[in-house]
Amino acid sequence: MLKLVKYKFPKMIDEENQGVLHVFESDKIPFPIKRIFTVVNASAKSKRGEYAHKACNQLLICLSGEIELFCDDGKNKETFLLESDGDSIGVPSGVWAEQTYNTNNSVLLVICDKPFSESDYIRDYDEFIKWKKIS
Amino acid sequence: MLKLVKYKFPKMIDEENQGVLHVFESDKIPFPIKRIFTVVNASAKSKRGEYAHKACNQLLICLSGEIELFCDDGKNKETFLLESDGDSIGVPSGVWAEQTYNTNNSVLLVICDKPFSESDYIRDYDEFIKWKKIS
Repeated sequence: MLKLVKYKFPKMIDEENQGVLHVFESDKIPFPIKRIFTVVNASAKSKRGEYAHKACNQLLICLSGEIELFCDDGKNKETFLLESDGDSIGVPSGVWAEQTYNTNNSVLLVICDKPFSESDYIRDYDEFIKWKKIS
Repeated sequence: MLKLVKYKFPKMIDEENQGVLHVFESDKIPFPIKRIFTVVNASAKSKRGEYAHKACNQLLICLSGEIELFCDDGKNKETFLLESDGDSIGVPSGVWAEQTYNTNNSVLLVICDKPFSESDYIRDYDEFIKWKKIS
């Protein structure tokens, strides 16, 4: 079984029509924030990710809708459901990850501990398995 | 005229159905990231904000839809339109700000240089004007 750490962040609804507030304080995040990225307006059932990072650690948070997160550490595979309830899953370096947007209105927020570096990505699954054996 | 600094962040569309990626590298952000908050699912024409910060500086980014940003430094008032084009407006401390969500699908991302502190907020406009005179 793949053991990933879950984090809980506040989700606040002041008044129904004013929307939903999610708050991420840096002292509740297990690393200094070096990069943030967001995905909006993905079509239902569309897929993103399909890569692993060699060094970058990430927190994945679903802000709206529902996103399926598939993770694979080379030995164990597991699928998690990200709902917009303030839950976050930490995806450490060395884990292959794929996200499927279950609904049209899904919004993904990712918080990273490294700046962007193309050489940190492994985008080919066979290469990932080879890299896991030597790393 | 109110002079606020605008920042440009990358907005990427790989394939139409895979949604829109916005990326925020910390070295493109004018301060260390201490807090992130997001607003999703606000109804069209609903309003948030209506306060000033004594010390906290913020970057406001519209990730989807359209958000109107009204700012007032006690002397000058100005309204900006935030569209989901990667543009960000820096709202420094000492500026009263209000956001109106123009569309139902609007998503707001705010990046802050201070952790949450209720004593940093001025939530009453008359008090804000008094504070501006002595600060």
